[in-house]
Amino acid sequence: EALSMREIGIGIVGGGYMGKAHAVAMQSVGAVFNTNLRPRLEMVCATTDQSAEKYRKSFGFKRCTSDWQKLVDDPNVEAIVIASPQETHREIAEAAFLCRKPVFCEKPLGASLEDSQAMVAAAENSGVVNMVGFNYIRTPAAQFARSLIAEGEVGDITWFRGEHTEDFYADPALSASWRTRGKSNGTMGDLAPHMINGALALVGPIVTLIAEVETVHSKRPTTSSASDAKDLSDVTNDDQGQIMCRFENGAMGHLFFSRIATGRKMGYVFEVTGTKGAIRFDQEDQNALWLYKAEGPEHLRGFRKILTGPSHPDYLAFCQGPGHGTGYQDQIIIEARDFLQAIETKKAVWPTFRDGMDVNRIVELAHDSSESKTWMNV
Amino acid sequence: EALSMREIGIGIVGGGYMGKAHAVAMQSVGAVFNTNLRPRLEMVCATTDQSAEKYRKSFGFKRCTSDWQKLVDDPNVEAIVIASPQETHREIAEAAFLCRKPVFCEKPLGASLEDSQAMVAAAENSGVVNMVGFNYIRTPAAQFARSLIAEGEVGDITWFRGEHTEDFYADPALSASWRTRGKSNGTMGDLAPHMINGALALVGPIVTLIAEVETVHSKRPTTSSASDAKDLSDVTNDDQGQIMCRFENGAMGHLFFSRIATGRKMGYVFEVTGTKGAIRFDQEDQNALWLYKAEGPEHLRGFRKILTGPSHPDYLAFCQGPGHGTGYQDQIIIEARDFLQAIETKKAVWPTFRDGMDVNRIVELAHDSSESKTWMNV
Amino acid sequence: EALSMREIGIGIVGGGYMGKAHAVAMQSVGAVFNTNLRPRLEMVCATTDQSAEKYRKSFGFKRCTSDWQKLVDDPNVEAIVIASPQETHREIAEAAFLCRKPVFCEKPLGASLEDSQAMVAAAENSGVVNMVGFNYIRTPAAQFARSLIAEGEVGDITWFRGEHTEDFYADPALSASWRTRGKSNGTMGDLAPHMINGALALVGPIVTLIAEVETVHSKRPTTSSASDAKDLSDVTNDDQGQIMCRFENGAMGHLFFSRIATGRKMGYVFEVTGTKGAIRFDQEDQNALWLYKAEGPEHLRGFRKILTGPSHPDYLAFCQGPGHGTGYQDQIIIEARDFLQAIETKKAVWPTFRDGMDVNRIVELAHDSSESKTWMNV
Amino acid sequence: EALSMREIGIGIVGGGYMGKAHAVAMQSVGAVFNTNLRPRLEMVCATTDQSAEKYRKSFGFKRCTSDWQKLVDDPNVEAIVIASPQETHREIAEAAFLCRKPVFCEKPLGASLEDSQAMVAAAENSGVVNMVGFNYIRTPAAQFARSLIAEGEVGDITWFRGEHTEDFYADPALSASWRTRGKSNGTMGDLAPHMINGALALVGPIVTLIAEVETVHSKRPTTSSASDAKDLSDVTNDDQGQIMCRFENGAMGHLFFSRIATGRKMGYVFEVTGTKGAIRFDQEDQNALWLYKAEGPEHLRGFRKILTGPSHPDYLAFCQGPGHGTGYQDQIIIEARDFLQAIETKKAVWPTFRDGMDVNRIVELAHDSSESKTWMNV
Ligand SMILES: NC(=O)C1=CN([C@@H]2O[C@H](COP(=O)(O)OP(=O)(O)OC[C@H]3O[C@@H](n4cnc5c(N)ncnc54)[C@H](O)[C@@H]3O)[C@@H](O)[C@H]2O)C=CC1
Ligand SMILES: NC(=O)C1=CN([C@@H]2O[C@H](COP(=O)(O)OP(=O)(O)OC[C@H]3O[C@@H](n4cnc5c(N)ncnc54)[C@H](O)[C@@H]3O)[C@@H](O)[C@H]2O)C=CC1
Ligand SMILES: NC(=O)C1=CN([C@@H]2O[C@H](COP(=O)(O)OP(=O)(O)OC[C@H]3O[C@@H](n4cnc5c(N)ncnc54)[C@H](O)[C@@H]3O)[C@@H](O)[C@H]2O)C=CC1
Ligand SMILES: NC(=O)C1=CN([C@@H]2O[C@H](COP(=O)(O)OP(=O)(O)OC[C@H]3O[C@@H](n4cnc5c(N)ncnc54)[C@H](O)[C@@H]3O)[C@@H](O)[C@H]2O)C=CC1
Repeated sequence: EALSMREIGIGIVGGGYMGKAHAVAMQSVGAVFNTNLRPRLEMVCATTDQSAEKYRKSFGFKRCTSDWQKLVDDPNVEAIVIASPQETHREIAEAAFLCRKPVFCEKPLGASLEDSQAMVAAAENSGVVNMVGFNYIRTPAAQFARSLIAEGEVGDITWFRGEHTEDFYADPALSASWRTRGKSNGTMGDLAPHMINGALALVGPIVTLIAEVETVHSKRPTTSSASDAKDLSDVTNDDQGQIMCRFENGAMGHLFFSRIATGRKMGYVFEVTGTKGAIRFDQEDQNALWLYKAEGPEHLRGFRKILTGPSHPDYLAFCQGPGHGTGYQDQIIIEARDFLQAIETKKAVWPTFRDGMDVNRIVELAHDSSESKTWMNV
Repeated sequence: EALSMREIGIGIVGGGYMGKAHAVAMQSVGAVFNTNLRPRLEMVCATTDQSAEKYRKSFGFKRCTSDWQKLVDDPNVEAIVIASPQETHREIAEAAFLCRKPVFCEKPLGASLEDSQAMVAAAENSGVVNMVGFNYIRTPAAQFARSLIAEGEVGDITWFRGEHTEDFYADPALSASWRTRGKSNGTMGDLAPHMINGALALVGPIVTLIAEVETVHSKRPTTSSASDAKDLSDVTNDDQGQIMCRFENGAMGHLFFSRIATGRKMGYVFEVTGTKGAIRFDQEDQNALWLYKAEGPEHLRGFRKILTGPSHPDYLAFCQGPGHGTGYQDQIIIEARDFLQAIETKKAVWPTFRDGMDVNRIVELAHDSSESKTWMNV
Repeated sequence: EALSMREIGIGIVGGGYMGKAHAVAMQSVGAVFNTNLRPRLEMVCATTDQSAEKYRKSFGFKRCTSDWQKLVDDPNVEAIVIASPQETHREIAEAAFLCRKPVFCEKPLGASLEDSQAMVAAAENSGVVNMVGFNYIRTPAAQFARSLIAEGEVGDITWFRGEHTEDFYADPALSASWRTRGKSNGTMGDLAPHMINGALALVGPIVTLIAEVETVHSKRPTTSSASDAKDLSDVTNDDQGQIMCRFENGAMGHLFFSRIATGRKMGYVFEVTGTKGAIRFDQEDQNALWLYKAEGPEHLRGFRKILTGPSHPDYLAFCQGPGHGTGYQDQIIIEARDFLQAIETKKAVWPTFRDGMDVNRIVELAHDSSESKTWMNV
Repeated sequence: EALSMREIGIGIVGGGYMGKAHAVAMQSVGAVFNTNLRPRLEMVCATTDQSAEKYRKSFGFKRCTSDWQKLVDDPNVEAIVIASPQETHREIAEAAFLCRKPVFCEKPLGASLEDSQAMVAAAENSGVVNMVGFNYIRTPAAQFARSLIAEGEVGDITWFRGEHTEDFYADPALSASWRTRGKSNGTMGDLAPHMINGALALVGPIVTLIAEVETVHSKRPTTSSASDAKDLSDVTNDDQGQIMCRFENGAMGHLFFSRIATGRKMGYVFEVTGTKGAIRFDQEDQNALWLYKAEGPEHLRGFRKILTGPSHPDYLAFCQGPGHGTGYQDQIIIEARDFLQAIETKKAVWPTFRDGMDVNRIVELAHDSSESKTWMNV
């Protein structure tokens, strides 16, 4: 707090779902967390000049471009947020590190393990701050879960179950799109990273695994127009996948991922069972963590529903009342705070690109295991 | 959308719990909702120069003052948010309306019915936008509930139950404070307005009521210091209250309010029963609305838990994914959008000061009824 | 346990909903609870010889009759269960007490306060066992709640909320029947007694109250035949009612009862708030009790969902595994055990007829208060 | 119903947990379901004469023995329930089939696949009724789930997740016992069969699987006496196991079983995801089934919590009111009804011994797969 407040120019690549979320976060983070670094929305980049200009105006950036290299090179852009599709992450990040600019990259780090490895090399060579956007592990509840585990409140972990399930592609009649093409846009590439990161953060490294990955609906209408209903396209990436795994600390685990999980809207779910207690969490009710403690008389034991509040990590900045709740956007604000703090203090912030790469490795091994039908060492 | 974007200078009185929330909201609202009016944090006011300066710097205001009259008079302050204690609301609002500046006033509108009546008169004389901060009725779920009722999805309402319960004063050992003094700081004055407003919004006007209001812990330690534990102070306002009421549309109702509701963190709860269906909501899980439809075969009927998403009011601006959830701060952003839109379009926005006064009236009648022990007409 | 096992002849008046439940209970109770008294299903009584014979055969009684006086007088009938409509309770009970035979009477005790008073007098003159069928307060969870309160686990009670809500008459198109005629068949007469008894058992005597009782759908189709849809009959009893009350121990309370609570199937619900904790219960999930303890660090506090099991009252006899659950029928078996034990030990068993009468008194006062629109002393 | 009512002599081997449950069920089933066959508790068998006599008296049997062969041979014993430990099932069943007496055998059918195969052969040679005690699939909710799936309400199943988790051995300090010795007493042998049967019933045959089975706490105190705490015994069977599998209908699946699942009391849980809907169930709240239908407008979709009632299978016999709930014991009564009906009508009743053997096969393959670390065909 002795450090004085100063502005920092932010460049965001992408103005869609996450580009907007990061733009809003950068605008709010200063007031929410009273950060020393105060973001200035310097430049936004999108695929066309028109869309870039639309985002600039709407989100309140000073300038815009349709050429990310310009954004990266701009002297007033001091830190970069990559919120464009996974295939673009590597190139942009490498360019940014060449300019020694801190990079926050949306998940998944790279479109492939190979991309991620190159990105880690670039990041570590540059020596600047590098961070990956696994926002769900940053909710007050998820952070609280991590601290409970770290403090031994559940004892030794014997079992972990994680899920990331949604249903946006559950209807077989939905038409094909970029989402149904490209390995990194499939369920394992796109949804799984959040919970793989979560599992690693909550339980520790995975040492062995066996997986099944599959495309359930291998053909979909080419377009959504009814008249073309008979014109079908191949779906070339996966709808769902599951992994049985073993963690370094000995715990048995299971992970499940799906974009066709009918009824599931935001099924980022975990259950941690230990020798002294257990934790349950479901992102669909993100302001509650369920804790069971195997202590006290049997007739008083039960899972307690703890509502997050000022006594939990990073909650108070958003609201003084417990149970009043944080939401999706707030997670991105917490990320922004951590990214800015890392830049300011020049200290690495978890999860770094290396942590992001670890996730890509599990994804890659899951695909391999599904093909070879064998257990794999990580 | 033909209207062009322009800046508007905002002055906020108060930099505490709600002052901060409104400051953050004013910074985010433009990007979140792509508003035409773009707030500029012009001035913040707090009781002392030091605290005002602290808020200015932390929240990112241009200027600050410890004299709210200066804020009100400042030509660059074009709209005013009152986020100071209830006793101050009237004076500030009246001054602002004299200057014909739009006012957003935190709940409760006035510290008393008399104050509120004066404020309504001032507002309506001025003819400028006036709005009250009942944020809980603006969550996507609460707005959705209102629309379900309006569209007749639950049929004719036969029963309404509302609650606003918290437990911040549940422990009898907690010391007295400004919160335990002053009628408008008691449970009926401070907590009840949210749900009274909710009841009126969901079901319509209340025509008769009978109430009980009481101070359960009439003495509390004067200070929190353990050594002084024997030094007790009188608690001069109420801990809890309940109201039986009848709505204009014939529905029977019950309202309960408490600041000593052990275990309750944000118990803004409502249940609406109708001839064709029913709705349940609990703010502690603010992203879910429970709906029962008395239709279809009996064996398939049940309350369904609907997670808010892009198909519900005001959700999409925060997140493209359903079930990803909004939080407390987002409610204030929705309020800011509506306030700005009202200013821009010069159209009144619900709830106006008159709506706020209706709430004060119910509170006043509840106190009266509790004393006279009789049913009262509204 | 030194007492030796012996048979006891049971006579049940009524073979409908509850007559069957008691017949099953009397057959199971010996094996479930290893009781000393072993029921022998001696005689069943119903309105006609045919229906009586049907019940005899189906339930396994030795004999049957359509004249309850015969059942009462029969020397082999040693204890009597009254499971016929409320209007019949008094006469049968009085006759049984004349014969000095123990009586278990279904709720409500009498069809009116007057009936109940006469029944209490008869019972107390006879000096034999007399018990009322408030089964919901006998679930393992409800008994557990009572013991938690008695042991001070929630501290001093500051607030109680109780409900008995169902929706069997929610549809306004449902035709009139015996249920829509006769004060004791209305919601206050028929449903309210369970939860009034519950409130008295959990919190203690009620000292003052004010109520509203109403018939929402005052006309219903005379018959269910569609062709007669226009032929309407008056509904002469109440659909719903609410009571604000004060308990002797100072707690504020509210009770709500409805047979038109759309979506509610078995809404026997209570919430007990105390200075040290709180309890919540909903009969629709009868194997869980929710307990909040205001102790330990704030960040670990929450309502815990305690599943009933062998460590809770009267559970083990039904199942050795916790969380395996008891059901509706099991409540009646617990009642049978207590009735038999009272007969065997000649010790009165709660709730006696006097306790049943206390419930009728509250019902009567609620009706009176609703008419006079004033607070009443009990 | 043209068939006339008659008595049938029942012999039960075992008077423990399940012996009692079946004794109670046989006493209640006639009245509950108005069965034509009316059980007479003819004989009970336990390991010693004393315990057998204790059970006889307590449960109300006519006679008892410590020699199960006597029970099997007794001419008044017309049907046999095997409720003794798994190792005893085969011998007793084979003897009963030799006498051509119908057999109900508790789960798991045999202590090993080999035992089960022999038992199926004996059963099928004898041609008499043979049934296995998978009670959880007989709750009204589970039967309802089966019918929803069969009627296509959830479309084609794409994913199934099943669990049977309890925590009776979660505490590592609990001492060894017969439960920690013998393959068939481990988690896979003892707990898994219920949910494996459930999976097969809900989704259909499993065609391939890969599993992990493990003993987490491989040593436990030899006795529960504190002084001997250092004297440890080997645990020779498994604490938990998981299976990834593929069903014949193409669905992907996962099963998890544990006796060390801290916090879980009766975790018989299943989730069925289909192209048109999804189902969720948790035995800890056995009277609710959660159903999601992917139909109607998006903003009205959600999982609905359906409370079982008279419109669901086998509920009405227990209670006329929906949501009033059935419990563990009621499941055994439903089994008794089905067993008696099969005997009466001479029609096989699911699950037969062959269905029980199918479960043993999956258990055996899970053990094999865990050792070989490979996928296995069923
Ligand atoms: N953390 C989270 O919760 C989520 C993360 N994501 C991740 O965020 C990233 C972006 O996804 P969305 O925002 O959903 O995508 P989107 O399709 O909504 O937006 C993508 C944006 O990137 C821009 N863009 C595309 N190619 C570009 C190029 N070559 N140069 C410059 N701009 C380009 C587009 O113009 C568009 O503005 C992805 O990596 C995705 O996996 C997405 C959704 C949620
Ligand atoms: N909508 C909601 O959810 C909530 C609304 N409120 C309402 O917001 C208002 C403010 O409450 P909090 O923020 O909790 O209070 P607070 O105590 O946290 O902050 C009050 C602020 O007002 C300033 N202030 C006090 N007197 C002043 C004066 N005479 N002139 C200028 N500034 C003055 C103080 O310096 C302080 O910055 C109240 O009306 C309260 O009822 C409060 C909490 C939640
Ligand atoms: N504790 C609980 O959960 C419940 C209690 N009840 C109570 O049980 C009692 C019976 O109600 P239900 O079983 O629902 O009624 P029902 O209509 O199902 O059965 C009533 C039975 O009483 C017999 N009966 C009627 N008048 C008679 C007479 N004068 N003499 C001999 N038998 C006569 C009928 O033949 C019939 O068998 C009522 O007092 C009711 O309030 C009812 C339902 C649930
Ligand atoms: N369906 C379900 O929910 C459950 C099923 N079970 C199954 O029920 C069976 C019995 O288990 P529990 O009742 O828990 O055991 P338990 O230990 O409570 O009772 C076993 C009974 O079998 C008798 N017994 C043992 N060996 C015998 C022999 N050689 N001859 C005659 N009697 C003998 C004992 O005397 C005792 O009465 C097992 O197969 C078990 O897997 C057990 C619990 C729950």
